[in-house]
Amino acid sequence: MKHLREELWFNTPNRRDYLNITDKVEALVRKSGVQHGLVLINAMHITASVYINDNESGLIQDYDEWLEQLAPHEPTHKYRHNRTGEDNADAHLKRQIMGREVVVAITDGKLDFGPWEQIFYAEFDGRRKKRVLVKVIGE
Amino acid sequence: MKHLREELWFNTPNRRDYLNITDKVEALVRKSGVQHGLVLINAMHITASVYINDNESGLIQDYDEWLEQLAPHEPTHKYRHNRTGEDNADAHLKRQIMGREVVVAITDGKLDFGPWEQIFYAEFDGRRKKRVLVKVIGE
Amino acid sequence: MKHLREELWFNTPNRRDYLNITDKVEALVRKSGVQHGLVLINAMHITASVYINDNESGLIQDYDEWLEQLAPHEPTHKYRHNRTGEDNADAHLKRQIMGREVVVAITDGKLDFGPWEQIFYAEFDGRRKKRVLVKVIGE
Repeated sequence: MKHLREELWFNTPNRRDYLNITDKVEALVRKSGVQHGLVLINAMHITASVYINDNESGLIQDYDEWLEQLAPHEPTHKYRHNRTGEDNADAHLKRQIMGREVVVAITDGKLDFGPWEQIFYAEFDGRRKKRVLVKVIGE
Repeated sequence: MKHLREELWFNTPNRRDYLNITDKVEALVRKSGVQHGLVLINAMHITASVYINDNESGLIQDYDEWLEQLAPHEPTHKYRHNRTGEDNADAHLKRQIMGREVVVAITDGKLDFGPWEQIFYAEFDGRRKKRVLVKVIGE
Repeated sequence: MKHLREELWFNTPNRRDYLNITDKVEALVRKSGVQHGLVLINAMHITASVYINDNESGLIQDYDEWLEQLAPHEPTHKYRHNRTGEDNADAHLKRQIMGREVVVAITDGKLDFGPWEQIFYAEFDGRRKKRVLVKVIGE
């Protein structure tokens, strides 16, 4: 069994940002030499998500507004978590909607994707260094 | 390490449909010959989900109404994504609630399931050919 | 390839409870002897979740209130599923928000975690014996 473990680092300019990381993951799958296996891609922080969906800017705005409706940032004092001195309780909630991780099949050395699947890093409490784990296993 | 990769194809009659695909996945696990490992089952399209829950028709109606409340189809013009000419922005949102994929343990050649676990394909923008990926790895 | 399969059993005192199971999973990873691989941790019941987030009591209360807003327990008669004699339709909905499973990388024999990642069992229909599956594969 082959395996590879790498981190991707991000420091987004805004509190919330959505970055397409498909090319970075593809490069790591190639580097691993794995032809058939699985790759796990997960946020290592608990106020961010990794998800798979469309690389379409209108949709990304739709997601952002929808998440803000389902789990609003303001008023920050309504969340018990924010009594610890944080203001990011909403980010912990948004991340549960969008998910922590994705697992993608590797076939013939490539991400085994449908026509529009793209991997995104979704940041809900940015403006600082945070990272994503990529773990490849297979043969 | 053994591995198997197959696609399941669907063309649902309605915009939204919920199909129990447990038997199809079980047959592929058998075909793989894997006794101990993991199987990944994921929608290859970004307006559909694979999830695990109860095969009970009332619950499926509850899910459908609940998703329509959380991410309504109408009015379609309220979503920026639909300015591209699509009318399926809500389907991209619903799919994030229900998830893209499940990973199931294989033990002694079988899906290692609790008493009521069943695998569903949830279609949120149907009436055309779409597919699910099944990837088995193990030994 | 090495593999290990174990169950964790719970019987929570309340309908809804949130238990940190990180130590139990870590012990099983150690027991497996796997140095590099993946561990799948999933609820075997369809009214419970396994998720990864912060071990902070205020946040857990925030999650609990938020889930109750998104998928209220009462009035129980509004859910079709409850016509089967159950009163747990809301638990099936809450579980889809929080997820069925997590997959965690194993590196150098340990859970490969960011600084605050902790694994939780979230029970939405407790007061009876229920279980979680832990499946480790790797080498």
